[in-house]
Amino acid sequence: MIKVLTEDQMTLQIIKVLKEGKKKEFQAILEELQPYDIARIFEGLPEKHHTRFLLLLDSEQIAELIQEVEKVHQLKILSKLGIEKSGHVMDLMDNDDLASLLEDLSPGKIEELLSGMKQEESKIVQNIMNYPPETAGRIMTNRFVWIPQHYSVRESVEKLKIFAEFSETINYLYVIDNDKKLVGVVSYRDLIINDESEKIQDIMYSRVISVSAYEDQEEVARVIERYDFLAIPVVEKNNELLGIVTVDDIIDVVIKEANEDIEKLSASGKAIDFDTKAHVAAYRRLPWLILLLFIGLVSGTIISGFEETLSKVVALAFFMPMIAGMTGNTGTQSLAVVVRGLITSDTDKGVVTRLIIRELKVGLIIGITCGILISIIAYVWQGNPVLGLVVGSSLVMTLIIGTLAGTIIPLILYKFNIDPAVASGPLITTLNDILSLLIYFGMATMFISKLM
Amino acid sequence: MIKVLTEDQMTLQIIKVLKEGKKKEFQAILEELQPYDIARIFEGLPEKHHTRFLLLLDSEQIAELIQEVEKVHQLKILSKLGIEKSGHVMDLMDNDDLASLLEDLSPGKIEELLSGMKQEESKIVQNIMNYPPETAGRIMTNRFVWIPQHYSVRESVEKLKIFAEFSETINYLYVIDNDKKLVGVVSYRDLIINDESEKIQDIMYSRVISVSAYEDQEEVARVIERYDFLAIPVVEKNNELLGIVTVDDIIDVVIKEANEDIEKLSASGKAIDFDTKAHVAAYRRLPWLILLLFIGLVSGTIISGFEETLSKVVALAFFMPMIAGMTGNTGTQSLAVVVRGLITSDTDKGVVTRLIIRELKVGLIIGITCGILISIIAYVWQGNPVLGLVVGSSLVMTLIIGTLAGTIIPLILYKFNIDPAVASGPLITTLNDILSLLIYFGMATMFISKLM
Repeated sequence: MIKVLTEDQMTLQIIKVLKEGKKKEFQAILEELQPYDIARIFEGLPEKHHTRFLLLLDSEQIAELIQEVEKVHQLKILSKLGIEKSGHVMDLMDNDDLASLLEDLSPGKIEELLSGMKQEESKIVQNIMNYPPETAGRIMTNRFVWIPQHYSVRESVEKLKIFAEFSETINYLYVIDNDKKLVGVVSYRDLIINDESEKIQDIMYSRVISVSAYEDQEEVARVIERYDFLAIPVVEKNNELLGIVTVDDIIDVVIKEANEDIEKLSASGKAIDFDTKAHVAAYRRLPWLILLLFIGLVSGTIISGFEETLSKVVALAFFMPMIAGMTGNTGTQSLAVVVRGLITSDTDKGVVTRLIIRELKVGLIIGITCGILISIIAYVWQGNPVLGLVVGSSLVMTLIIGTLAGTIIPLILYKFNIDPAVASGPLITTLNDILSLLIYFGMATMFISKLM
Repeated sequence: MIKVLTEDQMTLQIIKVLKEGKKKEFQAILEELQPYDIARIFEGLPEKHHTRFLLLLDSEQIAELIQEVEKVHQLKILSKLGIEKSGHVMDLMDNDDLASLLEDLSPGKIEELLSGMKQEESKIVQNIMNYPPETAGRIMTNRFVWIPQHYSVRESVEKLKIFAEFSETINYLYVIDNDKKLVGVVSYRDLIINDESEKIQDIMYSRVISVSAYEDQEEVARVIERYDFLAIPVVEKNNELLGIVTVDDIIDVVIKEANEDIEKLSASGKAIDFDTKAHVAAYRRLPWLILLLFIGLVSGTIISGFEETLSKVVALAFFMPMIAGMTGNTGTQSLAVVVRGLITSDTDKGVVTRLIIRELKVGLIIGITCGILISIIAYVWQGNPVLGLVVGSSLVMTLIIGTLAGTIIPLILYKFNIDPAVASGPLITTLNDILSLLIYFGMATMFISKLM
């Protein structure tokens, strides 16, 4: 119940048992653990123990293990097993997990690995891989139990007993007609609480909500989240049942999509985690930074256009970072609200109009508050009321424009089916930088005679 | 199967039926819909139809509806029902949903609402509300079925039939001993595939993973995500079974926590969505912006300290936004990597040290690449090799420091149990702004004679 040993102690004990080659004791330790924990220990072991570790497992255990380890370990394990054993292990893996293992490999390598599998299993995996990435078809599994509608409860239970090992741990049975079309669903609980002689078609729920195999995985997650489902059936256009997507995969989708939003909003580069190598991380982050370098030079060019104004009143430079920074930040704030809001809200014209008007009002309130504040500070600091007025009124304008830019740009991108998060924080920030400099120095140039 | 009517058409049809008071037809329409869809239609109806809508529902349907509508509607519905009916509805609600409905109300209002409930149900809700927010105890439900370990499969099925309506749609039965302590778990599938006379204690899985009622909900989500559970039991310190947390609530937790991270990283203000009123949104965003205004003034003060340098070489101002902007951005990139990484990775000393060294290398590669690039551009643009050198070498230094600041600051906060995301993007950006200005103008002042 309570794990008394720490992971380190467990690892030491396993190394000891492995060295002595005691299969029974090894299996006794594993029985105490969940697949996730076994995988963590396996990954933590020095590489030299891996082969012996695998030798003491049966195919089913390896299939469970391989689904829980990092991709790099997955490929190492398969190549250690050899074609025949690895084929056997792959037969036992969930098809969606296997498909995501294979997707980044070369066609030749994929063919080599698939050749060791049963033909029917390998065909199913290849089918899954034909769907576009990030769709329902790609994350569905065929490890579920379907029954014809004319079955009785007793017949269904018999079938369930036969496929007990085979079905994922969800509690629905999907019901199909003679054309393999999805016509209903019954829960395991329905089987328990109904009489054995009842016909499935009389007790099934026939208004099944399903998704198309080509549906975006984010949309699938939204449906499951809304209806609190544990799984959702995936169908062809003609409503033929293809597979199911389970809630555990959906949690992974939700986490992944949230991480992608954060990556894009912060332009932190795709898929960098703690284990990414330095040169890879740098390579992924550089394109953005170099783009930003050139955009930054645009700001510089604008300032150089106002060189005369600036050389006459150097004090103007003191307020430059504040104005540019605040405009950038207010834009990022709006952007984050819009990007996350689009995930959970429907968007019709009414919602969008209301949102833009709302953000306009927010910009007004924020702009006027901060504008008055900075006017007073600038006047007191530099003793020049005109400077205070120029700084303050610039800030009012830039904050309103910044707020609207942070709202409208992602909405336009969304309208054109571009992920709004690509209008990432830094891009909005830099755009707002440029706008704010133009407004600020424009105002200053207009009032230059009174500023000096 | 396929919804033929759009939501608007459905709404119109419901208004028609409501006006004519046809209960049967109204129920026939609702039967086609999931609770989530009914709630969307209810919220979309003009307020004047709400009372009649509720009159045509029974308590159970209202309980399902209320769990799917926005909080503001929840309270309106309860007040429309009156104490007696609302008490009845609240008895039927999931306890965790009810607890989160009540949590923001005044003690007086809570007492008033609870007074209409059955005493045992109201006690359970009050118990849940005694746990700290965002813990397992707060999101657990008592709608699950437990059985004593000495039951047979047949007895368990009997109990399940009695409580069929009562249990949430998960497929585990938790097994307890005479002291109500959690000793095992069986799945509905186990009940189906085993012989009726088998004893539960012989077929149950006894190494149950459970969480303490005081466990943070994010940690609960991590456990469920790791082990692909559909539910996890919640226990007292002495292992007494209190309730369960189900995976549908965990999806909500994962989305909420990701949104909170994004809110903090972008300092976009707490809990602003598309429906937040303008003055509320402005009020939530202003504190950050005003803080940033003052920090921006610190940058201004630094620049004013270098007024002499700047007035001699006004061209220095051209590169200011680029250097400050890029340093800020590289810091935000590192920050995002660290904040999201901390969610999925364990952190020991080794991991942290490796991460800091990795980011140092990243900073070096990024800094040197961008530094060389900008040196050449600055030289070509301004025709001054010393200016190119000052700008370039400043950028190298600021990018390295910016990367490290974005890495180390959140790690320090994490070490002291402060949420690292509070070192939000804008804060790191602004801090890096200040550092970069000091370095840039410091370098420029050193070489001032050669710059002119």
